[in-house]
Amino acid sequence: MENGKLTESLVRIIAETGPADAEPAFATAKQGLLDYMGAAWKGRAQAETDRLLRYVSGSGQALLLGSGQGASAELSALYNGYLGHYLDYDDVNQTVRGHPSTVLYPALLAVASLRPVTGKRFLAAYVIGAEVMARLAQAMGQQHYRKGFHNTATLGVLASAMATGYLLHLDTDRLLNALGIAAAQVSGIRLNFGTESKPLQAGLAAQKGVQAALLAEAGIAAGHTVLDGSQGIFSLYGEGVREDTREILLGKWGRSWELCSSGLWFKLYPFCSGASHIADSARQLYQAGGFLPEDIQKAVLVFPPGGDAALIHRRPATGEEGRFSAEYVAAVGLNGLAYTLENFSPKPVSVQLRQCMERVERQYDATIIPSKTAMPPGRFAVVRVYLKDGRILEHRTDIPKGSPGNPLTEEERYQKLLNCCSENLALNLSDAVEVLEDRMDTNSLIQILKTKYHRQF
Amino acid sequence: MENGKLTESLVRIIAETGPADAEPAFATAKQGLLDYMGAAWKGRAQAETDRLLRYVSGSGQALLLGSGQGASAELSALYNGYLGHYLDYDDVNQTVRGHPSTVLYPALLAVASLRPVTGKRFLAAYVIGAEVMARLAQAMGQQHYRKGFHNTATLGVLASAMATGYLLHLDTDRLLNALGIAAAQVSGIRLNFGTESKPLQAGLAAQKGVQAALLAEAGIAAGHTVLDGSQGIFSLYGEGVREDTREILLGKWGRSWELCSSGLWFKLYPFCSGASHIADSARQLYQAGGFLPEDIQKAVLVFPPGGDAALIHRRPATGEEGRFSAEYVAAVGLNGLAYTLENFSPKPVSVQLRQCMERVERQYDATIIPSKTAMPPGRFAVVRVYLKDGRILEHRTDIPKGSPGNPLTEEERYQKLLNCCSENLALNLSDAVEVLEDRMDTNSLIQILKTKYHRQF
Repeated sequence: MENGKLTESLVRIIAETGPADAEPAFATAKQGLLDYMGAAWKGRAQAETDRLLRYVSGSGQALLLGSGQGASAELSALYNGYLGHYLDYDDVNQTVRGHPSTVLYPALLAVASLRPVTGKRFLAAYVIGAEVMARLAQAMGQQHYRKGFHNTATLGVLASAMATGYLLHLDTDRLLNALGIAAAQVSGIRLNFGTESKPLQAGLAAQKGVQAALLAEAGIAAGHTVLDGSQGIFSLYGEGVREDTREILLGKWGRSWELCSSGLWFKLYPFCSGASHIADSARQLYQAGGFLPEDIQKAVLVFPPGGDAALIHRRPATGEEGRFSAEYVAAVGLNGLAYTLENFSPKPVSVQLRQCMERVERQYDATIIPSKTAMPPGRFAVVRVYLKDGRILEHRTDIPKGSPGNPLTEEERYQKLLNCCSENLALNLSDAVEVLEDRMDTNSLIQILKTKYHRQF
Repeated sequence: MENGKLTESLVRIIAETGPADAEPAFATAKQGLLDYMGAAWKGRAQAETDRLLRYVSGSGQALLLGSGQGASAELSALYNGYLGHYLDYDDVNQTVRGHPSTVLYPALLAVASLRPVTGKRFLAAYVIGAEVMARLAQAMGQQHYRKGFHNTATLGVLASAMATGYLLHLDTDRLLNALGIAAAQVSGIRLNFGTESKPLQAGLAAQKGVQAALLAEAGIAAGHTVLDGSQGIFSLYGEGVREDTREILLGKWGRSWELCSSGLWFKLYPFCSGASHIADSARQLYQAGGFLPEDIQKAVLVFPPGGDAALIHRRPATGEEGRFSAEYVAAVGLNGLAYTLENFSPKPVSVQLRQCMERVERQYDATIIPSKTAMPPGRFAVVRVYLKDGRILEHRTDIPKGSPGNPLTEEERYQKLLNCCSENLALNLSDAVEVLEDRMDTNSLIQILKTKYHRQF
């Protein structure tokens, strides 16, 4: 396909997509919705999130998850997006190299809590948003993230504007304006990682997407070529418009949804997904049994070169720092402890785990060939345990549990939800999501989410 | 000076600046305030701006200029920023290559309309905001704008966050957080020029700056190195951190304010400043007299190569398109018509002016040496008129009227204000601004701005 008029073509194909066209992806969309709500509910359980709640509450009637209060649509999206990403426990899409649901669902829930929308259109808007986000990520290219942009935020603002615009039934002209207004707000930086501005950036993307769609609905105009040419966003933020950009953005639209092909990675553990391989292997070795923690002489963690870049802490002082520590994650698993939120809290690391970590070291091996189906591509980890009796035990993980190549079972997903909220709430949420596409509105789901959360001290 | 810790150093020097330190720049700051208010008031007179008014109004108690209603602080900043830039009639700073006042004053007025702030701190916050915006522009480098970013928006979000944070008396830690949150929102694109998303982008920068400062005040944390290193904003959006970046950001701070050295360019005419040179020369030639429009055989407009890049319309159909047309601006002047808003409205171009434009052509001359004090540097225009009787008349402008090298007199600035609002309002605004730095609060000024504007049909 030729390039030219990329912006108009993309918007036209979105506007022409019927909710029924997106049905093949509804099952994954609903898994994403439940997972988002669980992660956000658990985020709500963190006392620090009260600060943002105070900032947003009282500005309107839109949903503030787990709160009896309300906010404007834009600030509802900000808060619920922040909550969903607060613990970095929400889903990941490989193509996006980021977190789609915690941007898209807050934007859609903000609007759906103020206006009647059918369950089917709500889910279709999410499917389209995830599709746009993944295709834009591919069109933007790999350098974007590597340079220091935060894909969840930068691509999220465009995707949430399109998802919200679709939900609002904007016509092509207004949808183009929404994209133009969103393109004026592409931003988000990795230098804010490790602070609560990381989850804030997810919320800001949702806020701006909602605002862009509502401004367009109100009749504000914008440029209609923001994806095109040498001053468009691919040129400003990526590697420019390439020969295959049109194909990437439009090819096979509606015949192969991102949510069905790449799917969503549901995190089993509340820590950086870069440590998931280590976690799986450590747990496997412990469960295979035959040793006690004190039998370990040393443990070696083997990565491909650079494969541990995100794991910046080698001797974490707290469980929270342990979220970005290969040594801590390995020690927790090799000591037979569970990967619960409690073990990754701001509490100091126990003496037992500290002593264990001192016997853990990292190595890099460029000669090991990663599996062709590795998740993420090119990644693996080996955990090798040297026991005092001379035995050497080893386990390698290429496709961590929870990623689309090794998905959670329905039971495991429900177990994760139970880790995040009460049994009663988990049941109500599951029931409401189960029948969502058959509902004339999303009210019953939103009423459940308005349940006031009472924090336990 | 060495680089390293640029972010912390800049924030520290801002926090340590006393309001009295900024006093040398108060006279220019007050001229900028009056000019902004006039431009915004005239923007309010355009019926199209009602759409955004409807979107923002009712969300809180902060000022909506010329409206009896109120909005949240963030949406007040959005609306008042949009109004100020709606007609592109607001001030310009050469170093910024953009419009400082229509971002900074809306942000400051939003906060000042909700909380008591002294007149002196209000003006000092503006001086600091303009200073930060100009220094960031220099540190970012020329490629940023050339690539397609919109400096008013991209630099405006950082500057308005710092100005607002200063107004709010944020301590160094919170001011750093405000800068980090703002750095996550650096955006705005030139592809939206020519649509109302251009003024919207000015408003969005103000909105985000206010929100960043208020979120930081509420205790939200962010990265503290967002200006530093290979993933900081100079690297992501500009030419990276250079040897002189530290000197650019911090050198002579408080001893040489941008508002005193470069100053502000107050637009005399409601059109693209790139056509100002043509306007001055055409008017001079007409006023020198000796010919009637029908005596003109042809007129040649001479630019340095590329000097007319912003003037994209050669045969504009409406006065509005004529804002970006060298031919239209020349024709208006050579026909002895005034450079009023009415002649640059969406109405069709008259037959008389269309016939005149057909006799106007552009030429480029790289051999002409621009004046050392040219505004902008390197720019000039020559208008050469060939009369039917064989005479050739010529006028050249290097420093257009209104720019700091050829400033408006006090009387001319007041005349501009009278073009924008009623005599009564102009008088009240002038009086309130005159004594602003001696006032314990900004209430009397804000009360005047709340005067409800009644549009004439």
